Amino acid sequence: MRKILLMGAGRSSSSLIQYLEDHAVSENWTIRIGDADVKKAALRFSVAKSLSWFKLDAQDLALCRVEMEASDLVISMLPAFMHPMIANLCLESGKHLITPSYVSDELTKMHETAVSKGLVFLNEMGLDPGIDHMSAMAIIEDIRRRGGEIESFESFTGGLVAPESDDNPWHYKISWNPRNIVMAGAGGSAKYLANGHYNYIPYHQLFGRTAVISIENYGEFEGYANRDSLKYRSVYGLNDIPSLMRGTLRKAPFCQAWNVIVNLGLTDESFQIENANKLTWADLLFAFTGKANLPELKSYLREYYRAGEEVMQMLEWLGMFSEKKIAPTDCTPALALQYLLEEKWLLGDDDKDMVVMYHRFIYRLENQKIEHTANLIDIGLDSVHTSMARTVGLPVGIAAKLILNGDISQRGVLLPVHKEIFLPVMNELTTLGIRFNETHRVME
Amino acid sequence: MRKILLMGAGRSSSSLIQYLEDHAVSENWTIRIGDADVKKAALRFSVAKSLSWFKLDAQDLALCRVEMEASDLVISMLPAFMHPMIANLCLESGKHLITPSYVSDELTKMHETAVSKGLVFLNEMGLDPGIDHMSAMAIIEDIRRRGGEIESFESFTGGLVAPESDDNPWHYKISWNPRNIVMAGAGGSAKYLANGHYNYIPYHQLFGRTAVISIENYGEFEGYANRDSLKYRSVYGLNDIPSLMRGTLRKAPFCQAWNVIVNLGLTDESFQIENANKLTWADLLFAFTGKANLPELKSYLREYYRAGEEVMQMLEWLGMFSEKKIAPTDCTPALALQYLLEEKWLLGDDDKDMVVMYHRFIYRLENQKIEHTANLIDIGLDSVHTSMARTVGLPVGIAAKLILNGDISQRGVLLPVHKEIFLPVMNELTTLGIRFNETHRVME
Repeated sequence: MRKILLMGAGRSSSSLIQYLEDHAVSENWTIRIGDADVKKAALRFSVAKSLSWFKLDAQDLALCRVEMEASDLVISMLPAFMHPMIANLCLESGKHLITPSYVSDELTKMHETAVSKGLVFLNEMGLDPGIDHMSAMAIIEDIRRRGGEIESFESFTGGLVAPESDDNPWHYKISWNPRNIVMAGAGGSAKYLANGHYNYIPYHQLFGRTAVISIENYGEFEGYANRDSLKYRSVYGLNDIPSLMRGTLRKAPFCQAWNVIVNLGLTDESFQIENANKLTWADLLFAFTGKANLPELKSYLREYYRAGEEVMQMLEWLGMFSEKKIAPTDCTPALALQYLLEEKWLLGDDDKDMVVMYHRFIYRLENQKIEHTANLIDIGLDSVHTSMARTVGLPVGIAAKLILNGDISQRGVLLPVHKEIFLPVMNELTTLGIRFNETHRVME
Repeated sequence: MRKILLMGAGRSSSSLIQYLEDHAVSENWTIRIGDADVKKAALRFSVAKSLSWFKLDAQDLALCRVEMEASDLVISMLPAFMHPMIANLCLESGKHLITPSYVSDELTKMHETAVSKGLVFLNEMGLDPGIDHMSAMAIIEDIRRRGGEIESFESFTGGLVAPESDDNPWHYKISWNPRNIVMAGAGGSAKYLANGHYNYIPYHQLFGRTAVISIENYGEFEGYANRDSLKYRSVYGLNDIPSLMRGTLRKAPFCQAWNVIVNLGLTDESFQIENANKLTWADLLFAFTGKANLPELKSYLREYYRAGEEVMQMLEWLGMFSEKKIAPTDCTPALALQYLLEEKWLLGDDDKDMVVMYHRFIYRLENQKIEHTANLIDIGLDSVHTSMARTVGLPVGIAAKLILNGDISQRGVLLPVHKEIFLPVMNELTTLGIRFNETHRVME
């Protein structure tokens, strides 16, 4: 009997728990799940013999230690900032760890100790980061094996709404952390490489400088650059690549309208709006533009932001020109916006979400320049087993199986860029219905 | 014999030290000055009997305690972040404290303790903050005394270059902290009140939405809004004022050109420029605009940023289109910009600086609407006794005299918005040549 300790059973853990449960008998697993709101979590997911629950207080280190001691492997689906603390306890108790989050500097520093203790600390094991790395590395390894030289790699991922549930002009509903949606790109310039040159895009220009990506049967998407593409040169072993960009996908014309919202200042979280419960969204836009009435405001948006009719209607649909009160209590513009979007972009019980990933490689092989694209379009099963939950949770579950079965030989703080990880995970994801469509085209 | 302990003898302490020395005999003072680089500081300023020097290590609390114990009053001209630590030591040793810096939340929390110990902790006692508060409060008190009702108050201050030393197209040289010049306004929206409405200006629009202020014989200035004007409602006792803005002055068209620099992303300090010692400033602008050569870059700046010929020449003069290397080592764009500006905007040994302050009040009195303006134009004596050093240091020195002579009755953490402080300080500043020109005009 092998024991898996899962810490955190929020929305994005649903498909992971299902996976663990589905494999409990064949893999001889018992699964222990801790969550701050254990009643709600246990109700949300079906209860099976192999699952037992406990109330998790992540501040209670003694409790965490006891639970870890009794386990063979720890999975942390807690907020990313808690992972260093969890990882420290794993070092103490000598347990393997999997997280779906970006590896932090604090975690990276634990590499040598983890190696010396024979532990696997596997991070970035979800969708983005996660499946993006694994699907890219599978292609990169294949091109390298055949002797190709990669000149360009672009990769975009988006957590969106499925076409059958797409009933708003933003073509967007929230399937993950709403704060991260509001603050996307804030706090610094995006960096990427194009034709051997650095490119930097300041935040307020980020959503106005997008790539257009067409995917057959799914229409046009807009891709904006993620914060730091440069660091993926070393992660992917592409140190001399001339063009490298990682970004996020939205359905067009989302970014055009979001560009107006960012430039108005609505994602500012540096100050509190006074009298937010008395003032309206129209008042807030007046405050940010210095305009005194709706006609002035609207003509300003059309002129200064070059907002077309579609964008104006998207703003209107959100209630930006309305008498709706800003927020129940004083809060930052960013938080007021988050409240509004959580209401307007709610993924309903009957809605399905959709994950879209798009890779485009250009490489040279035997005097040919070849374009290789790979895209994943994955639609959620329902509002519990969303595509977001499946694409984040299933790789984690598969990785748990690999580690417990001794199929991963490397030790230390790892990303899934190693063949012994990404090959079996990508193969099993395919059997679970998460699969890429690939195209090859000789360009010259 | 009363003992004054001055901590920090950088450039902005020169006129304060002169003032203390000038009054040492008549006021029966001995003056003890500590600085990290005590040799350089002692050389810079004339040495008189009343002055003694010591090497200050602000980390060395034991040393600070010994020096404080032997003093009657502490003046801290150290960087603002050190003031809470200094203030704590003053509480311990029961000494009065004066600083020219914005009062921090940490300091504010010491109010009750300082009151109970009978201590004055007087902050914001320099130019801006400092003379701005005192000159404004003198006018506010006068209008109130006459029964007037203030409807609007705008206040702008700038540390600039004197006309006789103004030989560059930016009409600017650095007379204070260069990092603060580069980062001015960064990190959040500016907030002010206009006609009873909130106005918020996001950082990337700040230098494009300026007020024009004309001062006779000195030409046109541009004023951009400071971060938070709203908090001055309570500081000045103007809780119901419909219009209130505090801002910073530059000589036109500085802000128009700085607006381009900000919008390009050059004040970003969130990332390091790779290969900064190999790449040129033109390369950096290519990276931030995605342009490949100078003609493309320049026509983009003209179109996208609506940069006119004067602004283009200002950028050219800085070397923004040049083959000059970005920086000797990898650093943030903001730091590279700071290095460049420190070189280009150097206030030379033969240069004089200039401080400009401008207040404009509109108030109603007996059915009249009256405009009252007050402006200060102060030109430095030389490159040591700059206007910046005089306007920051002299109010501190005068305040030291007031405290030691028992002329300030209030206790606790104070700003100079009380009559017993601002009246004598403003009066003495006038005798020292720092004086305002005032105008009155009936508007309707």
